[in-house]
Amino acid sequence: MELWFTELQTPAVGITCKTSRTLIEEHTGYQHLAIIETEQFGRMLVLDGMVQTTERDEFVYHEMLVHVALNTHPNPRRVVVIGGGDGGTIREVLKHPSVEEAVLAEIDGRVVEACRQFLPSISGALSDPRVTVKIGDGVQHIREAREEYDVVLIDSTEPVGAAVGLFSPEFYADVRKALRPGGIMVAQTESPFFNQDLIRRTQAGIRASFPVTRLYLASVPTYPSGLWSFTLGSLTHDPLQVDPAAIKDMPTKYYNRDVHFGAFQLPTFVRQLVESADAPASLNGSASAGGA
Amino acid sequence: MELWFTELQTPAVGITCKTSRTLIEEHTGYQHLAIIETEQFGRMLVLDGMVQTTERDEFVYHEMLVHVALNTHPNPRRVVVIGGGDGGTIREVLKHPSVEEAVLAEIDGRVVEACRQFLPSISGALSDPRVTVKIGDGVQHIREAREEYDVVLIDSTEPVGAAVGLFSPEFYADVRKALRPGGIMVAQTESPFFNQDLIRRTQAGIRASFPVTRLYLASVPTYPSGLWSFTLGSLTHDPLQVDPAAIKDMPTKYYNRDVHFGAFQLPTFVRQLVESADAPASLNGSASAGGA
Repeated sequence: MELWFTELQTPAVGITCKTSRTLIEEHTGYQHLAIIETEQFGRMLVLDGMVQTTERDEFVYHEMLVHVALNTHPNPRRVVVIGGGDGGTIREVLKHPSVEEAVLAEIDGRVVEACRQFLPSISGALSDPRVTVKIGDGVQHIREAREEYDVVLIDSTEPVGAAVGLFSPEFYADVRKALRPGGIMVAQTESPFFNQDLIRRTQAGIRASFPVTRLYLASVPTYPSGLWSFTLGSLTHDPLQVDPAAIKDMPTKYYNRDVHFGAFQLPTFVRQLVESADAPASLNGSASAGGA
Repeated sequence: MELWFTELQTPAVGITCKTSRTLIEEHTGYQHLAIIETEQFGRMLVLDGMVQTTERDEFVYHEMLVHVALNTHPNPRRVVVIGGGDGGTIREVLKHPSVEEAVLAEIDGRVVEACRQFLPSISGALSDPRVTVKIGDGVQHIREAREEYDVVLIDSTEPVGAAVGLFSPEFYADVRKALRPGGIMVAQTESPFFNQDLIRRTQAGIRASFPVTRLYLASVPTYPSGLWSFTLGSLTHDPLQVDPAAIKDMPTKYYNRDVHFGAFQLPTFVRQLVESADAPASLNGSASAGGA
């Protein structure tokens, strides 16, 4: 018998993966959670039917969510990850020796527990003494923070259910207040092929609170369209003005000094998408020419 | 009733697309050919069950196969496309005013005819007076050419069936002889996540004939893993030494001056893959750390 897991990434396109077994499957109260064993990508975390991370390609997303900001900030000491219960983002944060404390604010404790049990190569860093795991609402955690963090990383699921609040202008304004002077935030902001309205909205929302707002890209095979965007908001420091010589060699498989700058060199249709974020009329418009 | 077309891109992962109808389906003598209507990507050309091009995302592959080389060569006048029967590569070639003749050498005349009928936005340029369509074996066409072309573009299918010869060191040596002084070739060289052995082999094969050999990347949603590689071989000119000011604005949706350089900024696992092409032992080795 062959078992295939299929995620419909849009109503009209999906990814399908051969699986050998289901390690855990449950409703957590927040969402449906599963970890399955796939032949192509190793173990895979699936929330509400959507691929969140896999053993084989998680390095792209986690490295790119973290290292651009942490190499742009001159001295990141306190970092908070909103969401990211698998622990992969925290693992990358801890590769920076300046980091004294890394806080994980994850709403669903069962995600953390399941990943600790079944995805140790991703979650292992959660046991590091520099890490504080807080199970609770990330929106509220940020709302209550005042100049506490050097970097805020928003490692959310798709903008449905509990994650909707993590994509709002009000949340980004709270992130700004939670940052120390010189602070930086990065949010995952979905696919420029499939989620153009969301990218326009998050661009506009982050720009409203941050003088430096920049979108960059990375290739994640298991995410819709394979091309993923991240949006960085910064109070002072510009990732494109970093001295390349100051970016140290790190034990990474995707991010490096060249990728730090190359990821901001946007295809024309993505550049137009970012520029169109200033035009309010486009918020509910249809996909632009480049959209698939 | 819902109809879904699924391509298994590897034995363990696939893409699945909702379809409304099949416009043409036949065995051509060379391969199985189909053009289907999909909801996500518009019309889609499928050869031997593998997605070749779609109306919505074809711009990425065609622009990136063409414009890097044609903006690196100072005066490309004669260009040949090997394969590429859909006409999209020729369309992009003709955007360069210096081009006097563009030859299409496609082995399967039925691909050209079907695309002329059902994919006019891609194939339309084949009717341009600067274009010569030659139905025949591209390997032989190149073998018989002596200093005829400024640029050779290898727009092949996957390395199976009729296309196998287009990935061999002997073919690249023939391409070199077919080029005029200062000539450049580019080949599509598959996914760095899924086709690592092929990338090592084509790197080694192209390096054996070309003093400048460089791999670059682009994001194509309908191709396996979403991340696609191209390998450029050049007799003289280096794409990274092009004066950015000499790259004119063009009517493109993906390629631009920034992408010209950014596409060569390789993720660490891809850089290691390219560097490992010098090590013969790796030719039959297993996937490296970065592979999915």
